[in-house]
Amino acid sequence: MTASAFDHPYLSGLLGDAEISALFSADADIRAMLSFEAALAQAQADHGVVSKEAAVRITEACGTFQPDVLALRHAVATDGVVIPELVRQLRKAISGEAAEKIHFGATSQDVLDTSLMLRLKAACAILSDRLSQLLCSFDGLGHDWGKSQLIGHTRMQAAIPITVADRIAAWSSPLADYGDRLQKTSFPVQFGGAAGTLDKLGDKASAVRATLAETLGLSDRPQWQSQRAIIGDLAHLLSLISGSLGKFGQDIALLAQSGTEITLSGGGGSSAMPHKQNPVNAETLVSLARFNAVQLSGIHQSMVHEQERSGAAWTLEWMILPQMVIACGASTRLASTLAGKIKRLGTASA
Amino acid sequence: MTASAFDHPYLSGLLGDAEISALFSADADIRAMLSFEAALAQAQADHGVVSKEAAVRITEACGTFQPDVLALRHAVATDGVVIPELVRQLRKAISGEAAEKIHFGATSQDVLDTSLMLRLKAACAILSDRLSQLLCSFDGLGHDWGKSQLIGHTRMQAAIPITVADRIAAWSSPLADYGDRLQKTSFPVQFGGAAGTLDKLGDKASAVRATLAETLGLSDRPQWQSQRAIIGDLAHLLSLISGSLGKFGQDIALLAQSGTEITLSGGGGSSAMPHKQNPVNAETLVSLARFNAVQLSGIHQSMVHEQERSGAAWTLEWMILPQMVIACGASTRLASTLAGKIKRLGTASA
Amino acid sequence: MTASAFDHPYLSGLLGDAEISALFSADADIRAMLSFEAALAQAQADHGVVSKEAAVRITEACGTFQPDVLALRHAVATDGVVIPELVRQLRKAISGEAAEKIHFGATSQDVLDTSLMLRLKAACAILSDRLSQLLCSFDGLGHDWGKSQLIGHTRMQAAIPITVADRIAAWSSPLADYGDRLQKTSFPVQFGGAAGTLDKLGDKASAVRATLAETLGLSDRPQWQSQRAIIGDLAHLLSLISGSLGKFGQDIALLAQSGTEITLSGGGGSSAMPHKQNPVNAETLVSLARFNAVQLSGIHQSMVHEQERSGAAWTLEWMILPQMVIACGASTRLASTLAGKIKRLGTASA
Amino acid sequence: MTASAFDHPYLSGLLGDAEISALFSADADIRAMLSFEAALAQAQADHGVVSKEAAVRITEACGTFQPDVLALRHAVATDGVVIPELVRQLRKAISGEAAEKIHFGATSQDVLDTSLMLRLKAACAILSDRLSQLLCSFDGLGHDWGKSQLIGHTRMQAAIPITVADRIAAWSSPLADYGDRLQKTSFPVQFGGAAGTLDKLGDKASAVRATLAETLGLSDRPQWQSQRAIIGDLAHLLSLISGSLGKFGQDIALLAQSGTEITLSGGGGSSAMPHKQNPVNAETLVSLARFNAVQLSGIHQSMVHEQERSGAAWTLEWMILPQMVIACGASTRLASTLAGKIKRLGTASA
Repeated sequence: MTASAFDHPYLSGLLGDAEISALFSADADIRAMLSFEAALAQAQADHGVVSKEAAVRITEACGTFQPDVLALRHAVATDGVVIPELVRQLRKAISGEAAEKIHFGATSQDVLDTSLMLRLKAACAILSDRLSQLLCSFDGLGHDWGKSQLIGHTRMQAAIPITVADRIAAWSSPLADYGDRLQKTSFPVQFGGAAGTLDKLGDKASAVRATLAETLGLSDRPQWQSQRAIIGDLAHLLSLISGSLGKFGQDIALLAQSGTEITLSGGGGSSAMPHKQNPVNAETLVSLARFNAVQLSGIHQSMVHEQERSGAAWTLEWMILPQMVIACGASTRLASTLAGKIKRLGTASA
Repeated sequence: MTASAFDHPYLSGLLGDAEISALFSADADIRAMLSFEAALAQAQADHGVVSKEAAVRITEACGTFQPDVLALRHAVATDGVVIPELVRQLRKAISGEAAEKIHFGATSQDVLDTSLMLRLKAACAILSDRLSQLLCSFDGLGHDWGKSQLIGHTRMQAAIPITVADRIAAWSSPLADYGDRLQKTSFPVQFGGAAGTLDKLGDKASAVRATLAETLGLSDRPQWQSQRAIIGDLAHLLSLISGSLGKFGQDIALLAQSGTEITLSGGGGSSAMPHKQNPVNAETLVSLARFNAVQLSGIHQSMVHEQERSGAAWTLEWMILPQMVIACGASTRLASTLAGKIKRLGTASA
Repeated sequence: MTASAFDHPYLSGLLGDAEISALFSADADIRAMLSFEAALAQAQADHGVVSKEAAVRITEACGTFQPDVLALRHAVATDGVVIPELVRQLRKAISGEAAEKIHFGATSQDVLDTSLMLRLKAACAILSDRLSQLLCSFDGLGHDWGKSQLIGHTRMQAAIPITVADRIAAWSSPLADYGDRLQKTSFPVQFGGAAGTLDKLGDKASAVRATLAETLGLSDRPQWQSQRAIIGDLAHLLSLISGSLGKFGQDIALLAQSGTEITLSGGGGSSAMPHKQNPVNAETLVSLARFNAVQLSGIHQSMVHEQERSGAAWTLEWMILPQMVIACGASTRLASTLAGKIKRLGTASA
Repeated sequence: MTASAFDHPYLSGLLGDAEISALFSADADIRAMLSFEAALAQAQADHGVVSKEAAVRITEACGTFQPDVLALRHAVATDGVVIPELVRQLRKAISGEAAEKIHFGATSQDVLDTSLMLRLKAACAILSDRLSQLLCSFDGLGHDWGKSQLIGHTRMQAAIPITVADRIAAWSSPLADYGDRLQKTSFPVQFGGAAGTLDKLGDKASAVRATLAETLGLSDRPQWQSQRAIIGDLAHLLSLISGSLGKFGQDIALLAQSGTEITLSGGGGSSAMPHKQNPVNAETLVSLARFNAVQLSGIHQSMVHEQERSGAAWTLEWMILPQMVIACGASTRLASTLAGKIKRLGTASA
């Protein structure tokens, strides 16, 4: 079944992003959740909360455990989250004292939000690299055509001549900034226990959390289970990226419509008109920009996260965020492809 | 890969809808697209546009054809739509004169939008049935508990006593209306050719379109390729349904929080607090309502559909609409489950 | 103060709609609320709930009453609604037995939602007239230029020639449908009392409500205080209208960019480039379409209207709906202006 | 006329913010635009672009000029922006050589976007102060009730006991972060000329822009006329603030519903039920949060800002952004009021 165009058997050829999507597979989520449980046991062993032996046993088990996914699916229908059943399966697989100690003091949200952070961190590294490559492509275009003339357009009307370099700067400059932001983004561990107070860890709570964060390569901070600006900030940045690339796409589509100031290779074919060269990638960048602009609204609706944990607000994030990341990924991928198809930009300057 | 929670290996246990999702599988789309091509050939044969033999050959081929999906995926990346490659594969499979006649006078959008209508029609029939069942459940609750007392709440404060029947009426009444609307919804064929004028069919254009519609069980109307209110109307209705069910969910979650006026069976478990009975289905109904409310904005953005066909506006629909239908389906499914879990509502009346 | 561009001292020259805005002035709201209170007293007198004398006295008072608006403003800060203070002021002005009987059995939402319906009914009549006029303009354009040739564009690329009439049909056809819908829209009275049960009216509740509706020229139906599809349907229709007019605007802006297939009179000037003729109205139609597409999402969020009356969901409607109506009004106004500026469309056919 | 609830004669008592709204009055915009023109003339005089005398004359005129607002309104209808007419009026008032030199090398967007930045800077300073005050209020509540017990709630169900301090931390912590961000926000001048290249200023362009920025108390950076992340970032932050305050409001409304863990003074009255104490401010915080979450989507749609200046994308910002700022302002105002009404939080700890 293929609810989403982003992983649809053929639509994903246009809209998908295999590299980013892989981070949002069930398998990647499970591996990240298991790495949380292992790192938690290790951190708790470091601080004397569980025995070293238990931590070793838990770490071993988490490294290889293959859950019964059908049972997970069944349990999510009742529990709303996968963790109670996953932990149940893990305990059964581990047995003994270690079985009791896995997931000690933690709650579902700790595992799920931390798994998300691990994967978002990886996704942002990919996006950052792609923006760097895209900036190189734009630099290359600037080198080749920067001094050529383009008719500046304001309000959809010819204004005065500018250079191709001027237009490219309007495309590049925001991307450079977004790249910086991606690199500076902090991905914090989430660890709060049943109601955010780490009630079972007593005075070792902060130390365990710090070690847990370090082990996972995440930053340490107090729990943020009902404070969703972390998610909001990232979604905003994703939508800025796809938004600026949508501006690039719209510009190219408008250039391609008149056709005098651009030469594009390899446009899309039509079933009715074989002669056409449709600027498919350019249009799709606009679609992806508008998609993320829509989705961002849902992420901000989830800021109204009642009490210590809102099932309603949190679940809404799950339906929206992964596709925002993939849409942003597809934007960067398509923008690179599109930049590579530009064989001429502007006209010879006077 | 599982970009979407709606078909995620385990999250779909909560958020998915297998019956509705099946209509949005790649396979269902392909079968519906092939049925368009077959019906088109038949309609054109009826009106002397193509030979009877060609129509028979095309119909046979479309009935069994299995496309090379990887090649489709590859082609979508370039063409933005699957049809040029699908038709190329079909022509190769058919060969001879019939191969020339398949897809005659049609364009990609004709096939894709008509395939969508065929599947939306099926989805709406399912939703309509489910609303009927849900109304039965509400009737049953009304029979059992309708005369019990509920403290009416306005602005989140206790107001005056009402009856359980009063509250149930606020849940049922909109659903009955939506059921009527689903049954009255018209699902039109889309058939316009390259730029909406059916230029290749001359004076037989309308007749062929009417026959095509009839063969497919759709309504006949002139092409609507840049007129997207048909999509907008349906998306709106889907969001109304999930919205009203979100109200039901919110009401149940609030009743369950205080706990004195409701008994629910089988709430969700917690990994940290085994004693809890979380009203997971109720919360998820709220999430789904907010999800569709967000998505509807994107469908309406697509109303700005420039010229004869907008790649940007149209592609945006693809990313949004299927999940709106599935979200609505999941709402109806969860609402039925939730209604079935209500073992008591209200308190004995004075 | 001018928070909104729609009634801003100078921006409203572009974005405002004086005729529609007048229906959403505080004064219009007050007059409509007073007409509710008068009609309620009359209906209750008809059915023996209050005395004829009280009804006469209340009607007289409501016909001329000028509230202390500053006191209303002060009270809204505390009560969240204007009615408790308005009724208090009215009672003081009326005095005697009639003072006790005003607003009998009603609640704030009855007055506010009914006032809204009265004004939306008037707004929709205006919009319907304007769509008729716009259709006449399009007919005129079709008469003058319908047989001229236009290059059909799909995916922002030249496709095949169509006629101007073909393009105009894509603009007109949805508007004709929306006009029909506006005329068929039902505007129901809202009357439910404290918690929707008209508890104070006993067995006369339905009869009073029916008479009330008839007196006000509204349709009769049971209270819909927590069932907001009535608002949702109207908001959806408003956004469809501005959306289709946004498509018209986008088409004109694209035609004006290349300039070969259209002659427009009276474009906008630039402070930097006096020679330019900016298609301001065309662009603004796109802005208004996107504005309403965004707002619709908020109206649908308000479908999650908890319990008997949600302050949170209801108040959200107040912030959004009036400007959606005005935006739609501005769209129809600007579309007519823009249609009138089209001095040539298409090129001579071969 | 009162399209917007934020400056409505009585609804603004609940939803308005007089201090912030004043920054978005037409008058404040005009004063800020005139200060741009004056500062531009001074900067150009500093760098020898215009004469000192002209700069003095322009500065004098801008200090006192009162435009004919009706003529502005009329002109905006045609030009889409107010500047051509404002400059025309200014030139007439100034006369002589200085009249020629006003607005030299600038374009409408330079004036409008810079005016916006000046006022957003002032608004953010107000918001920052208010967040500080609110944090003080929360500290006070923590001092008085922090050690009291609150039943932690997850998924709308009682979980385990937490302290009032724990809950307050979830309210305060995000606000402290937003306050920091408001203080660090950079408000850049916009100065690009007709098509962003400052074509008329030759090699003095950067120097003039830097002096202009300094004079206005804004930061200097190259033009950002089609790069709208600056607007997007601010809108995002506004929505984060109102979102987190919406969480506070939702929490209070839920506490007030059960009533055992909170004592609130001065709730809102009801026209039908005088005994009620509605948590109006708490609900309104939720409404404002959802409002801004919706609007943010429109600001992000405007990221698709085609070519050198998009009338469509830019105008959309004007309809949305001022009300987002005021909504955020109203959130901070209401949150302070609500915090002040909390007379008890939690129950005596064991």
